[in-house]
Amino acid sequence: MKTDKLLYGAAYYDEYMPYDRIETDFQMMKDAGMNVIRIAESTWSTWEPHEGVFDFTHLQRMLDCATKYELNVIIGTPTYAIPSWLANKSEDMLALTHDGPSIYGHRQNMDITNPVYLDHAKILIEKLMEQVVKYDCVIGYQLDNETKSYDTCGPRAQAMFVERLKKMYPDINEFNHEFGLDYWSNRINSWEDFPDVRGTINQSLSAEYRKFQRDIVTEFLSWQADIVNKYRRPDQFITQNFDYEWHDYSFGLQPEVNQYDAAKCLDIAGCDIYHPSNDYLTGREITACGNIARGLKNNNYLVLETEAQGNIEWLSYPGQLRLQAYSHVANGANMVEYWHWHSIHNAIESYWKGILSHDLAPNRTYKECSVVGNEWKRIGKHLVNLKKKNRVAVIASNEALTGLIEFPMESKTSDGYNTVLRWICDALYMMNIEYDIISSHADNFSDYDYLFVPALYSASEKELHALDEYTVNGGNLIVTFKSGFSDEHLKIYSDTQPHILSKALGIKYDQFTYPSNVKVSFNNTTSNASEWMELVSCDTAETLCYYDHKVWNTYSAVTLNHYGSGRAMYLATLFGENTLIEILKDFFKDDDRLTSNEFSAKFPIVIKRGINDFGKEIVYLLNYSDKDQSIINHKAECTELISDCPIHEGGTITLAPWDVAILEFEM
Amino acid sequence: MKTDKLLYGAAYYDEYMPYDRIETDFQMMKDAGMNVIRIAESTWSTWEPHEGVFDFTHLQRMLDCATKYELNVIIGTPTYAIPSWLANKSEDMLALTHDGPSIYGHRQNMDITNPVYLDHAKILIEKLMEQVVKYDCVIGYQLDNETKSYDTCGPRAQAMFVERLKKMYPDINEFNHEFGLDYWSNRINSWEDFPDVRGTINQSLSAEYRKFQRDIVTEFLSWQADIVNKYRRPDQFITQNFDYEWHDYSFGLQPEVNQYDAAKCLDIAGCDIYHPSNDYLTGREITACGNIARGLKNNNYLVLETEAQGNIEWLSYPGQLRLQAYSHVANGANMVEYWHWHSIHNAIESYWKGILSHDLAPNRTYKECSVVGNEWKRIGKHLVNLKKKNRVAVIASNEALTGLIEFPMESKTSDGYNTVLRWICDALYMMNIEYDIISSHADNFSDYDYLFVPALYSASEKELHALDEYTVNGGNLIVTFKSGFSDEHLKIYSDTQPHILSKALGIKYDQFTYPSNVKVSFNNTTSNASEWMELVSCDTAETLCYYDHKVWNTYSAVTLNHYGSGRAMYLATLFGENTLIEILKDFFKDDDRLTSNEFSAKFPIVIKRGINDFGKEIVYLLNYSDKDQSIINHKAECTELISDCPIHEGGTITLAPWDVAILEFEM
Amino acid sequence: MKTDKLLYGAAYYDEYMPYDRIETDFQMMKDAGMNVIRIAESTWSTWEPHEGVFDFTHLQRMLDCATKYELNVIIGTPTYAIPSWLANKSEDMLALTHDGPSIYGHRQNMDITNPVYLDHAKILIEKLMEQVVKYDCVIGYQLDNETKSYDTCGPRAQAMFVERLKKMYPDINEFNHEFGLDYWSNRINSWEDFPDVRGTINQSLSAEYRKFQRDIVTEFLSWQADIVNKYRRPDQFITQNFDYEWHDYSFGLQPEVNQYDAAKCLDIAGCDIYHPSNDYLTGREITACGNIARGLKNNNYLVLETEAQGNIEWLSYPGQLRLQAYSHVANGANMVEYWHWHSIHNAIESYWKGILSHDLAPNRTYKECSVVGNEWKRIGKHLVNLKKKNRVAVIASNEALTGLIEFPMESKTSDGYNTVLRWICDALYMMNIEYDIISSHADNFSDYDYLFVPALYSASEKELHALDEYTVNGGNLIVTFKSGFSDEHLKIYSDTQPHILSKALGIKYDQFTYPSNVKVSFNNTTSNASEWMELVSCDTAETLCYYDHKVWNTYSAVTLNHYGSGRAMYLATLFGENTLIEILKDFFKDDDRLTSNEFSAKFPIVIKRGINDFGKEIVYLLNYSDKDQSIINHKAECTELISDCPIHEGGTITLAPWDVAILEFEM
Repeated sequence: MKTDKLLYGAAYYDEYMPYDRIETDFQMMKDAGMNVIRIAESTWSTWEPHEGVFDFTHLQRMLDCATKYELNVIIGTPTYAIPSWLANKSEDMLALTHDGPSIYGHRQNMDITNPVYLDHAKILIEKLMEQVVKYDCVIGYQLDNETKSYDTCGPRAQAMFVERLKKMYPDINEFNHEFGLDYWSNRINSWEDFPDVRGTINQSLSAEYRKFQRDIVTEFLSWQADIVNKYRRPDQFITQNFDYEWHDYSFGLQPEVNQYDAAKCLDIAGCDIYHPSNDYLTGREITACGNIARGLKNNNYLVLETEAQGNIEWLSYPGQLRLQAYSHVANGANMVEYWHWHSIHNAIESYWKGILSHDLAPNRTYKECSVVGNEWKRIGKHLVNLKKKNRVAVIASNEALTGLIEFPMESKTSDGYNTVLRWICDALYMMNIEYDIISSHADNFSDYDYLFVPALYSASEKELHALDEYTVNGGNLIVTFKSGFSDEHLKIYSDTQPHILSKALGIKYDQFTYPSNVKVSFNNTTSNASEWMELVSCDTAETLCYYDHKVWNTYSAVTLNHYGSGRAMYLATLFGENTLIEILKDFFKDDDRLTSNEFSAKFPIVIKRGINDFGKEIVYLLNYSDKDQSIINHKAECTELISDCPIHEGGTITLAPWDVAILEFEM
Repeated sequence: MKTDKLLYGAAYYDEYMPYDRIETDFQMMKDAGMNVIRIAESTWSTWEPHEGVFDFTHLQRMLDCATKYELNVIIGTPTYAIPSWLANKSEDMLALTHDGPSIYGHRQNMDITNPVYLDHAKILIEKLMEQVVKYDCVIGYQLDNETKSYDTCGPRAQAMFVERLKKMYPDINEFNHEFGLDYWSNRINSWEDFPDVRGTINQSLSAEYRKFQRDIVTEFLSWQADIVNKYRRPDQFITQNFDYEWHDYSFGLQPEVNQYDAAKCLDIAGCDIYHPSNDYLTGREITACGNIARGLKNNNYLVLETEAQGNIEWLSYPGQLRLQAYSHVANGANMVEYWHWHSIHNAIESYWKGILSHDLAPNRTYKECSVVGNEWKRIGKHLVNLKKKNRVAVIASNEALTGLIEFPMESKTSDGYNTVLRWICDALYMMNIEYDIISSHADNFSDYDYLFVPALYSASEKELHALDEYTVNGGNLIVTFKSGFSDEHLKIYSDTQPHILSKALGIKYDQFTYPSNVKVSFNNTTSNASEWMELVSCDTAETLCYYDHKVWNTYSAVTLNHYGSGRAMYLATLFGENTLIEILKDFFKDDDRLTSNEFSAKFPIVIKRGINDFGKEIVYLLNYSDKDQSIINHKAECTELISDCPIHEGGTITLAPWDVAILEFEM
Repeated sequence: MKTDKLLYGAAYYDEYMPYDRIETDFQMMKDAGMNVIRIAESTWSTWEPHEGVFDFTHLQRMLDCATKYELNVIIGTPTYAIPSWLANKSEDMLALTHDGPSIYGHRQNMDITNPVYLDHAKILIEKLMEQVVKYDCVIGYQLDNETKSYDTCGPRAQAMFVERLKKMYPDINEFNHEFGLDYWSNRINSWEDFPDVRGTINQSLSAEYRKFQRDIVTEFLSWQADIVNKYRRPDQFITQNFDYEWHDYSFGLQPEVNQYDAAKCLDIAGCDIYHPSNDYLTGREITACGNIARGLKNNNYLVLETEAQGNIEWLSYPGQLRLQAYSHVANGANMVEYWHWHSIHNAIESYWKGILSHDLAPNRTYKECSVVGNEWKRIGKHLVNLKKKNRVAVIASNEALTGLIEFPMESKTSDGYNTVLRWICDALYMMNIEYDIISSHADNFSDYDYLFVPALYSASEKELHALDEYTVNGGNLIVTFKSGFSDEHLKIYSDTQPHILSKALGIKYDQFTYPSNVKVSFNNTTSNASEWMELVSCDTAETLCYYDHKVWNTYSAVTLNHYGSGRAMYLATLFGENTLIEILKDFFKDDDRLTSNEFSAKFPIVIKRGINDFGKEIVYLLNYSDKDQSIINHKAECTELISDCPIHEGGTITLAPWDVAILEFEM
């Protein structure tokens, strides 16, 4: 989906305001060049104060006023936080989880399989849709918010799970065999004996339940989309606010949602990206998480939430907020929307600050937003709908992620799957190589010249054969440790490891350990091995690095194999980013387009590209440092869009700290 | 309240003794110069072995024997630990808390709002009073012990809470608005919908519940005082053993009790103070916690418990126990009572050792107590009822403390409010400036020349106006970060920060962050900023220090404003004690009485003063070091009381390690 | 019990196999010189898929095939993991514990006092015995597996506990007095008032409950032994797989089982020993834990489980697996059985790897096992049934261990009792002094020349008098801190400490603290004191070291007393192993046999000895290092068994890294 302009704005909550100031706020937004707000998603108890009694006063005020100040509006369905009267309507309204029963208060702890919840949610969404659909300013709908299954494990959900297993396995013996349930007397000899899954020590079963919980989310969003679809105008879109594995900030693939599946009912993907700032701002998350979002529909996406002031430790240095906004758009976002307009005066997110501080006055953050908003008003049509055609893809897999939750690697400080995913993604980012993140279930990979496979711990034979075929047909495959080890139900493959892939990779191993005092060296870089190490032997592959270790030094840490028309590299342990970059440079060395750029620019200059609606090539030069940087344009004559100045071939572009330049080239 | 002599003794538990030795014990106490015991507060199951069956054998033995050995007795009502038969009498006898239901065994886990508990407690107290009131040796009563609400959250307590809210807010919309309940659909549209408060994510609600729990304590103690008052003789006092926020030792203001309110039903405040010892002994807690106790009734207080040998890591070096005893008295205590006489041979406090070790023989600790007891027998009449008239006060607030529990600062190692309170108190202590600690709700502050306001995060406009008025009328106000930020219900003020105080302080800010690599420098001292930093701009104030930071260096860390007839200093972050002392010295520089003393003595010599019952000035010189110290008396001729020697003006006083001198001056 | 040969093998699970390969597996075992498997202990749900329906297909396959490949079989009764249908048969089938109710899934969480469980267990064991008893290959039975009480605290178990107390204490007052229940109103005035023991703060009560739980285990195993005894052939033995306090590996005495009592119903003791490997392999656990096992029946023992590849971080270096196998046998084991043959493809122990990796192919580990197996086939008859007659014993006590769980020492990093036990054991091991570990309840100690008493915190007067008597009669007693402090119910003794022992030791103390900046020095070694320090004064003893500390330096850290015909040393704190070794060397200095050996070999050469079935002396030389080592035989001419070469007196034995030599001497 394309949007007609770059969207820039904030979530807005008239109902939270300490006093009436909506006209002031919307005027301030308009002055700042903002053009969109997201509303309504959090406050069911305001819209329906008593069962069946509706009060849309705040909603109408906001829509009327948005119309007046020419702000677009995205309506969130307010189903992710229920009113207390609804919680009291059903014994099992709140989810029973692995941690026991939930208590009312927090959002996102109801049982989304509960029919009473679903009935009331449907009524409310329908009432809301009737209110809002007629407003011209309403451009789209966000279904619920950061939806999950909230670990629902109640009797109803578990019964649904058993029914699903029954259908998958008409023969219960086959189920026991695939899941290895003989172990420790966990064998289930009749479906009636199925025990509470919360106590299981069988990771195949636990992982299957997590998959079932992800599918609940897909079904729930699809069910909501159906309701909204009955009402919405054709020009209004449907999106959802997907989030990421959380490490005090957005870190990687979301474990609790299969976003590739869940996005099918949407017109455009949406997400929220929060990240470290000030001395810790690198842009890594904007790229890694943004690439996940862009891959969901293989198209532009909406940043439905990102930090303005954000959490206390995130307060950004002057210039950083603007750099961040441009970075999102450079990565393919069509919207940057802050959470949120005003800092809230009560409750748990009072210190997750918005654009305005609690005094609701124009401040440093607001002024920096105004710069962005007014620049985008001026040049946004050159930036919106930026299309990318990347040659590099990184594979992502919820099943593999779950596998490494169920069978964690040794390191207590890592986050398993996403640590490996980010290891690959961040090295590419630091090399200024743009990449897509795609599902391991993608139909084929032949669109890409390079395919990275981080820790694909759980994979069906079909998936593994697809990788083999990709390579034999000329692809460049890069696989890390812990790939192809277990099947789609975490049953470990019982032949040569890595299963199927060993052929393309030309290697095998049958032992692994935790790397203690182990190093990996390549091209004058040396770094510590961590997380995991496999004792790899080469069949047809050549060894690029052996382990530096007094005993394990006969085993390979990195190997390279020629296979069919392609190449396959294996990384048998995790090591330092610098060393990885050197290895990748060597792997890419005959491919100039990947390893160099026409600006001879390296990180902290980040380069992003794409084709805009005018069919012209856009190149962003983003200065991720607190130093001035000079870049020479070796490419061709172009226009720097913000300054509207021509840059001759050979000309110099100077960037202030945290500054950005946008070059537009004729094709 | 005055006492007729310094009280010195220990808690005594005849019922815990492994064999009968009461006469030996009381003789040993008498020999040591001890004159008081506290008894009876812990053993309801001994006094009432079966419902309605009473057995006061041990009690009578103790009172008879105390009479014989001329020991005074304080009777504790034994209601803070219930017998198992009582626990079984009511389904909800034990408190349902945020952590779920309680199990019998621990003390202090019953629900003190339970009528069955209250009925039985009343009967027992009455029976006990009948037993003890007639004994001459009984000088007073301690109500319960370290009373709290024990986080009672059962249905009865929550119903009481809702009733209270209903009365406070006849209009439920006003309640929703003040508490910001629209947020995340937490709006309560009818009182019947009120959810279990334990699940709330609304800190205004949570803080209000904590306040309600503190008020339960006040009511409970007042209810007990009424019962005791029906029986007690006029010469017998009522006290309570207040304790402090616990950090492996007594640290600061107690979060779970409003001691200013709770003390109203008492004749004299009591407290227990436990603190680090040996290499870690500084006297800071004896002063900070003692000053809280002295401020409760603005009068002398009782140290009902302090360590003899105490916990394993507290074993004191020779001389320290005596120094501690004198420090309490120098601070205004009229009693020093150890917990406890004998180390216990079973159960959870076996390693919280008393004066005697488990072998019950005279030991090093006993001998050091004997030195103190016999000195006090000789000179105690000069020391008792020491009156202070301090010019400096530090404000304490339970609401602010709660506010910083609900909205913690970033640092994982600090304890929020009390860290800031102690930062101020400890700097004054190290400067040998004596101070009072008073409630933020005090009627007026004009008795004090200097008023310190640490982290007054939650404050009503009334409280803030009082501070403004204090300053305009000539007071010297020192305010720290996180003051005046939210109202009495933790609703953040929605205008210029700090609310109301910004005028007196001549500053404002709208952003804050966590200080990372930030320093504060003043007069050749430099220290790291920590916990919190506000980006302060001056209006009428001048900046004393800017932040040392590459970006935030245009903002003020410390400011000074002249306002009306007074001055107002603002500390926008927390930094090192040395730097704070330099800043305070500068602030006090025209006030010789604060910054110098007639002994030119500095810490580790601690100086404490007051007027005794003879109307003479007493000056304590306390050597908090393991080195000899010499001090010259520049003040006037005086008598050193312990040695009974005259000290001429200009004479030298030499203190051995951990030693003390007490000078008595004619007025 | 003797066995007719060294047993070498692995646990085998045909029912877990991903495909049928039993013939392959057993042929591989046979080729590797293996001769034993353990089967059947984990899979009740496979043997009895529905209540009363039995399916022993896998069992019969294994027994038939074992017969064919001449493997001995140990049958485990499969009662430690129940099927889900059984869990559903009784409301309280799963144990209610201190952590609340259990959920089905994990093994070892049923309530072994539940009669429904016991009835079904009996039926199954009987059915199983009927199946297996007739097979010649079945040589013995393992009862259950790593049996515990699983912290059962349900109403039935607690009622059993109260009944037991009633019998112990006909007078409830005596019970209250001994347990000190007056404290904090915990007095129990009638048995009907007995509260839920899970809430108690009385460690005497808590420890008594733990003892009761240990006795449940003893009774349960004895009950199982009775069932098996009804069926077994006279040539078949009964054993049990005892395990150890777990610290990510086998560390020390098992807190939850009194193995000395529980072993009474067995013919031969069995155990599992898991330990660090690769750079962290020292052999300490093989000796310390093996010595516990050998001490249970004062005879040879079976290592029923030890690691093959084991956990990820345990992967051993080439040669280590063989060294480990020999070390077990050198310590008196008659069997080394790996857990397990094949790595499992599903569930919680998938990464606790067996001999074979998941690919089930011959690997490095299998090949190293083959070396061992084939060597033992050749020389095993010289190694089996090795008898030891040690002169040194270390006392172990479950009550003392429990005492230090209930009253932990200060250090957060230590594990209390076992830290002290291992401190002693490991120093002896490093000195190449072999020792027995025996129960503190042993009838007499006169068989030993040296008796070590680590932290005997809880001990009856009978036990303490036995130690006194041992010494007065000429024994050499070495006692550590925290011995003789409390009686068998954790009531602290109320006279001179250490109770009774103070006389033999010639010392006393009444104070103790945590050692901060305290050192202990002896013979040019200095180390930090840790865990605990007692301020010891000598009566008749002499001081070997005082504490190095600015204040506590007048107190003794190590003392020596001559008492009757014996000597008694006291260690008042824990300090470094090097210093302890120097002190012990000095203590042993007139006893050449202890402090020297005929090979002048020191750690990393470990020396183990014994007499074999031929009446010859066997001396093992085990190289615990990755360096070559040369040892000179100063003893006498002998044969090195592996090489079958004679070694002359004065001859040199050279050991490769992790290698072993076995010398056989004529007596």
